[in-house]
Amino acid sequence: MKTKITDLFEIEYPIVQGGMIWVASHPLVAAVSEAGGLGLLGSGSMYPEQLREEIRKTRELTRKPFGVNIPLLRADAEKLMEVALEEKVRIVFTSAGNPGRFTSFLKSHGVTVAHVVPSVKFAKKAEAAGVDTVVAEGTEAGGHNGFEEITTLCLVPQVADTVSVPVIAAGGIGDARGVAAAMALGADGVQMGTRFALTRESAAHPNYKGKGIEAGEGDTLLFARKIGPIRAYKNAFALRIWQAEFAGKSPEEIRGLVGERRAKLGIHEGDTEEGDLEMGQIAGLVKELKPVGEVMEEIISGLGRVTARLNRVMNEIKN
Amino acid sequence: MKTKITDLFEIEYPIVQGGMIWVASHPLVAAVSEAGGLGLLGSGSMYPEQLREEIRKTRELTRKPFGVNIPLLRADAEKLMEVALEEKVRIVFTSAGNPGRFTSFLKSHGVTVAHVVPSVKFAKKAEAAGVDTVVAEGTEAGGHNGFEEITTLCLVPQVADTVSVPVIAAGGIGDARGVAAAMALGADGVQMGTRFALTRESAAHPNYKGKGIEAGEGDTLLFARKIGPIRAYKNAFALRIWQAEFAGKSPEEIRGLVGERRAKLGIHEGDTEEGDLEMGQIAGLVKELKPVGEVMEEIISGLGRVTARLNRVMNEIKN
Repeated sequence: MKTKITDLFEIEYPIVQGGMIWVASHPLVAAVSEAGGLGLLGSGSMYPEQLREEIRKTRELTRKPFGVNIPLLRADAEKLMEVALEEKVRIVFTSAGNPGRFTSFLKSHGVTVAHVVPSVKFAKKAEAAGVDTVVAEGTEAGGHNGFEEITTLCLVPQVADTVSVPVIAAGGIGDARGVAAAMALGADGVQMGTRFALTRESAAHPNYKGKGIEAGEGDTLLFARKIGPIRAYKNAFALRIWQAEFAGKSPEEIRGLVGERRAKLGIHEGDTEEGDLEMGQIAGLVKELKPVGEVMEEIISGLGRVTARLNRVMNEIKN
Repeated sequence: MKTKITDLFEIEYPIVQGGMIWVASHPLVAAVSEAGGLGLLGSGSMYPEQLREEIRKTRELTRKPFGVNIPLLRADAEKLMEVALEEKVRIVFTSAGNPGRFTSFLKSHGVTVAHVVPSVKFAKKAEAAGVDTVVAEGTEAGGHNGFEEITTLCLVPQVADTVSVPVIAAGGIGDARGVAAAMALGADGVQMGTRFALTRESAAHPNYKGKGIEAGEGDTLLFARKIGPIRAYKNAFALRIWQAEFAGKSPEEIRGLVGERRAKLGIHEGDTEEGDLEMGQIAGLVKELKPVGEVMEEIISGLGRVTARLNRVMNEIKN
C-alpha cells in the first residue's frame, strides 16, 4: 500500500496510531508497528527517563519504525526531545503548541517531523516551520482539540488544498470505511487514536476500555471550551465542567474544576466518574476489545470490500 | 450511477439538494433536478399557498422528480403536507421533529418519505416509523442541528450499521471528495445544502452568498445549544448568542436573544451582521459562485478522479 506516508515513514500501511497519554506505551506501539502501521509512544504522560525506558522496551519488541508524540505544552518538552534524540528515535509527532519551536532543531538531527493541526491556518504554519507532514485532526477526536471545532470531513480536503506536504487525517476514523473516506478526501494516511486505545495491548485501565466499548456515538462531550477544548467520555467530571461553562463560570474557575491529573485518574487509574476519560466519538463504532493485529487485519481486508463497493457505484457514472 | 437512492427517487445521480429555508425555491430546485440530482423545495420559509405556487413553478421548469422538505416543528406542518399531496408531490423529506407523526399518512398517499436524523437513536425511530430512507446529518451542517454534535464521519457508518433502509449522508459534503467519502462510509447518497445555497440559482440574498464565498473553514459557529443548536456564519448575531450562553444566560433569555425572523433577515434580506446566516463548515471549500449545472458536472467528473486515486492507493495492498 504505497502512499507518500508509507514512503515517508518506511512502513507497510499508511496507518498511524495516535501517541495517546496513559495509553500508548511499548506494548501498543510495538504491536502497531509490527502489524505494519506506525506506533507512537505517548510521551505526554511520561517523565523523560520513563520515555527512555519505553523507547528501549519498544525496540526489544520490534525492529520496525516507530515514533514518539511530544505535546509542546509540556514544560519539559525540550527534555523529552533530547531523550528521543539520544535514543535515536527517527520520527517525532508534535502537537498542542507552536511547530516553529522545535521543527528545524529536530530536522537538523535527521528526524522526520509531523505536527498535529486543527485548522487550515495552523496547517500553513506547520508547513512554513518545515514539517514533513501534517496531521489534520477534526473535532470528533478524543483529547485536546481545536477551538474552532472543525470536523475531519471539512478539515481534510481544505488542508489538502492548502499545503503541499502529505496530509494524515485524524479524528473519527475507526475502521476500513473511515480509512477509505479519509483517502477519498485527499489524505495520504490516517492516524487513529480511540480505535487503538480500545485494544488488548493498550495501556489504558480496563475500566476505561469498558466505558469505550459500551459508549454509543453520542456518549462523548467536548468541554473546557473556554480554556482549550477536550473531548472525553461523558461522565460526572466532564458533565460538571460542561455545565459550569454554560452557567457562566470564568476560565479561571473552569481551570480550577478541571484541576490536575484527571487524565491519569481516569485512563490510568480507572476512575470512570471523576477521571478524564479522553476518547473520540468513533468509540461508538468499537464493540469489542481485540488485539491490534486483528484490528489491523480487519482494516486492511475491509479496504478491499469498501473500494469494490465504491467502484461498483462509481462505474455506473460512465454508463 | 445506480444506488438504492437513484432507484428510490428515479434520479440519475444520488445527490440531493437540501431543502433550505429562504434558499431552495423553484429556480434552484428545478436546476438541481434538471442536472440529474434531486431538488427539494424548502417549505420551512413558505406559507402553504406559496408552497403551492413554488411546486407549480418548479413543474414549469422541469419534468424530472423533485420533492419538498417539511420541518415538523412548523405549527402548520400538516397544512404544508396537504398542499404537497394536493399538488401530487411524490417525495417528502421531513426534519426537525418526530417522524412518527406523519410518515404513515404520507406513505398511505404513495409518497416516498425521507427523514433527517442527527443520531443513531433517531435513525432507529425513523426506520420504525416506516420511512424509505434516512438522512444522517452531522454537526458540521448548517442550520438546525442535533444536541449531541455528532460529526458526519462518525454518524454515517454507525447509522448504516443500524438501519436497513438506505442512508443519505449530509453535513460537510461540498465536492467529489466528500461524495466519495460519504459512499465509502456506507451511504447510498448524499444531501448537500451549503454547496447549493452558494450557487447562482439559489434564492439566498447576494450578501449571504458573499459571506459564504469569503468564509474560511472556521467561520461558522454552533450556537443556541441550550434551546436547539444552529450552525451559521459567525457574525455579530451568532457571536452574541454564543457569548450569552457561556455567560450563563438561561434558555428563556437565549430564546429572547435569538428572537424571530432572524433567518429571513439574514438569508432573504441580506443583513450580514444581525441576520442568521445559516451555513455549514464546508462553506470554506466554496470559492466561487457557479451555476448548479457546473457544480454538478464538476462533482460527477471529479468522482472519476477521486476513485482512480483511491484505487491506485488501494491496489497496492494486494502487492
